[in-house]
Amino acid sequence: MSQSLTGQEVRQSCRTGKLTAPTPGLASGYTQANLVILPSSVAFDFLLFCHRNPKPCPLLDVTEVGDPEARYVAPNSDLRTDLPRYRVWRHGEMVEEVTDVKHLWRDDFVGFLIGCSFSFEAAMLNANIPVRHIQEGKNVPMYKTNIACTRAGIFSGNLVVSMRPLSPADAIKSVQITSRFSLSHGAPIHWGDAAKIGINDIDKPDFGDAVTIYDGEAPVFWACGVTPQVALLQAKPEIAITHAPGHMFITDMKE
Amino acid sequence: MSQSLTGQEVRQSCRTGKLTAPTPGLASGYTQANLVILPSSVAFDFLLFCHRNPKPCPLLDVTEVGDPEARYVAPNSDLRTDLPRYRVWRHGEMVEEVTDVKHLWRDDFVGFLIGCSFSFEAAMLNANIPVRHIQEGKNVPMYKTNIACTRAGIFSGNLVVSMRPLSPADAIKSVQITSRFSLSHGAPIHWGDAAKIGINDIDKPDFGDAVTIYDGEAPVFWACGVTPQVALLQAKPEIAITHAPGHMFITDMKE
Repeated sequence: MSQSLTGQEVRQSCRTGKLTAPTPGLASGYTQANLVILPSSVAFDFLLFCHRNPKPCPLLDVTEVGDPEARYVAPNSDLRTDLPRYRVWRHGEMVEEVTDVKHLWRDDFVGFLIGCSFSFEAAMLNANIPVRHIQEGKNVPMYKTNIACTRAGIFSGNLVVSMRPLSPADAIKSVQITSRFSLSHGAPIHWGDAAKIGINDIDKPDFGDAVTIYDGEAPVFWACGVTPQVALLQAKPEIAITHAPGHMFITDMKE
Repeated sequence: MSQSLTGQEVRQSCRTGKLTAPTPGLASGYTQANLVILPSSVAFDFLLFCHRNPKPCPLLDVTEVGDPEARYVAPNSDLRTDLPRYRVWRHGEMVEEVTDVKHLWRDDFVGFLIGCSFSFEAAMLNANIPVRHIQEGKNVPMYKTNIACTRAGIFSGNLVVSMRPLSPADAIKSVQITSRFSLSHGAPIHWGDAAKIGINDIDKPDFGDAVTIYDGEAPVFWACGVTPQVALLQAKPEIAITHAPGHMFITDMKE
């Protein structure tokens, strides 16, 4: 698999079973997305949760009830087959990881595609701003905060953030850059003292890996696409399907 | 009733039956909103329609299923009583106009509050840009266009626009001003040749009143909150409740 593929080519490789690996670095320049599939009985609540919490849950596309095609960001796609790997959740418990969900698809399913931070990281790198976890070959560190999301129906939970350590000058530039990426979590939500948002140990992320923070740098925090997954676990819907971590849906949208 | 009331005071007057008149000019500085109430069976489709068509349908607030309070833009409000006048629609037909809808409220109802153009008109007037229909004491002229909205489930239809004639300099200023009002339809969608968007006779608006266009002025068109009402009429849901024209919900949000 190569950087030079299009989003459509990566989706096709997933569909034919050739690609089951993580997607970071694939189809460079194309927007990647988090996936959540839910039955229509809870789809209104989840859509409202995303609407009320646009920083962690920026919606790139929402399918019609029963339709597995993401018509706006990826015409002719099929959400049942076009990701390399899925997780299936029943009543809030992860029950299996699979490479397609054709056998599970139902007429009442709705797919939600939610922006992720890969797009703004590419823009930061282009502006010569270091992205520490990429430099160190790690997953981005993510933390549960004490900031409550706005509840919608059965969905609630605290905001999860990702963190990148930056010098003050780079932090200012990164605010300017990421403010333009409203479909990719937008501007940071906090900068500096981690305890202020309920993070007690910056070296112990709740998800992903710890990264080095050098002298003269401060941690900068962005809303993170893991937030809706935490809300899902708390809501415990009868069934939910998501992408497996790092195994994203690649759209036709240029970053 | 006076300009100097708060949103809450106007809502209280509606609730006690004292106010049944139109709201333009009331509670100056407070954001007014269009209301649509629908049963939960079609609420996902309508929320998705608003999400896909944010210029005609900017959402100020959406209630939880069965809850008549607009908790975010007007705490302690009651959508069943706090508007001066309502219209009730059954299967796409207007069946009655009433001053409260307590007797019709159901546990499966969802309320949608949608921004209207009053907010940006106030900002235009503050910048000494003439708003012709206000100068002439008329309703704003509104037109059906040939621009299709993005369909969502049972909801579809063409964009409806409002029109204000402006000189080129004022049109440019109005683009700058209204761009900042994303919850009030945002920047114009067209400027100049009305035929290009399917309007054949600028002197015959589909809703509201014709206004004078002086030499050196061109018509400037904004997405209009009548659009979701047209989509409602086409979708013909079993029941829908809206505000009566000009009889808006007044929020606690400052413009």
